[in-house]
Amino acid sequence: MSGGSSGSVAGPWWVVVTGASQGFGAAICMGLAPLLPRGSKLLGVARSQEGLTNTAAAVNKINPNATFISIMMDLETATTLDLEAALKRHLGAGQPTPPGQALVFHNAGSLGALKYLREMDDSAHASSYFNLNISSVIRLNAAFLRVTSALPAKVAVKIIHIISLAALEPFKSWGLYCTAKAGREMLFRVLAAENPALRVLSYSPGALDNDMQVKARTETQDKDIRDIMSSLKAEGKLLPCITSANKLLHILDKDQFKSGEHIDYSDA
Amino acid sequence: MSGGSSGSVAGPWWVVVTGASQGFGAAICMGLAPLLPRGSKLLGVARSQEGLTNTAAAVNKINPNATFISIMMDLETATTLDLEAALKRHLGAGQPTPPGQALVFHNAGSLGALKYLREMDDSAHASSYFNLNISSVIRLNAAFLRVTSALPAKVAVKIIHIISLAALEPFKSWGLYCTAKAGREMLFRVLAAENPALRVLSYSPGALDNDMQVKARTETQDKDIRDIMSSLKAEGKLLPCITSANKLLHILDKDQFKSGEHIDYSDA
Repeated sequence: MSGGSSGSVAGPWWVVVTGASQGFGAAICMGLAPLLPRGSKLLGVARSQEGLTNTAAAVNKINPNATFISIMMDLETATTLDLEAALKRHLGAGQPTPPGQALVFHNAGSLGALKYLREMDDSAHASSYFNLNISSVIRLNAAFLRVTSALPAKVAVKIIHIISLAALEPFKSWGLYCTAKAGREMLFRVLAAENPALRVLSYSPGALDNDMQVKARTETQDKDIRDIMSSLKAEGKLLPCITSANKLLHILDKDQFKSGEHIDYSDA
Repeated sequence: MSGGSSGSVAGPWWVVVTGASQGFGAAICMGLAPLLPRGSKLLGVARSQEGLTNTAAAVNKINPNATFISIMMDLETATTLDLEAALKRHLGAGQPTPPGQALVFHNAGSLGALKYLREMDDSAHASSYFNLNISSVIRLNAAFLRVTSALPAKVAVKIIHIISLAALEPFKSWGLYCTAKAGREMLFRVLAAENPALRVLSYSPGALDNDMQVKARTETQDKDIRDIMSSLKAEGKLLPCITSANKLLHILDKDQFKSGEHIDYSDA
């Protein structure tokens, strides 16, 4: 997203990254660090202050001029009003000069119980899971669009959604995760249809070498799926998070995707 | 589902229909009424006792021998244990003779707020919506499969999910509904993959002449979509619920669908 390319916009950026304390979210922040124009604000949202502190240090090592702002918040319980207030406060939404562009990376998410649907006996778990993994995304989008649409000038807004192959194909014993990802894929297609001026992308980052993969290959109830996950690791096929994050940033920079489209790491 | 066809199974049936108090759920019950072998049990689940009483009367008028059991229950708050207890009690799960087949029709559902995602400012609404429209389905499946798998003999189980074109295509200002339906489509694909012995079908009943359509054509925020809904009515293109319900029962009787498949009224 360097100057002069089709996706670039003059002026500082406002960026929100959820799940910024580790893994792919932290990698997105690190990939963004060298690209941020002076005066940009990079807001990292997560539940872990320690993880956010680590991400802030990594970002500032890459670009000492980058402003990384840690927002410790539980997206499962944060209301639209909570999110809107936090965005306004930390982005300085009342200042006279709006940003050159505004981006949200919906990266936060959880795998949930990795067991067969017929064995889902914890009634509260599914509700809590979809609240974090679907509803919170709706709340953050509404808050972000409310803040950016209230600016005195029109701002280029990009909303990026981290998705998975599990949105397209069923994985045995991943019922919650597959359901949320398929639902979210549609959610962002609706968002794109409703808002032609927005740029909306669902990006599937590939099989990453992160904590989620450790959980996937050790806790998945179904042996077939567990074996697939284990062999990805054993055969060295897991991607470093930063490799996939940089590919995503390159796709955004080229800016040739169709709004609402699903793009996989291996497609691009 | 008359005797002799590929989908039929000897012995009485256990059937659960959610949202049985009106519209398509009531039509499924009425379509089933003449098909139920003696000794079958048809459980209608809904929040409205009055609606269930009407459905019971309609079923018994068609087949005076049919046993329709009204279960007044709010699926948004019912736990898996609540559902399991109700199923056991009303189906007589402890009796020595298991049913010939067991069917669940997941028909209950709501449209939710029919407004643009950017204007979703009620933080609790999305959580409540997905709890009713996704999580409750997981709870009922787990309860039903627990009850049927505990029977002394293997029982043919069919799980039917009422879906919509909105699972496949984005409808502006129907973000909640589209998201839930797309998520549920995947949920039932996972259920099918996990349980090869189950027969799982996602059936899209077409545009029905019911209360949900009235709401759709009057409350939809987006004018394009509202106009489409209105023209379906004006041009007489809405289907009577019983027509589509009978088509569904015919598909089940032929029993040639691939488990987990999405079939539309117009496909069959």
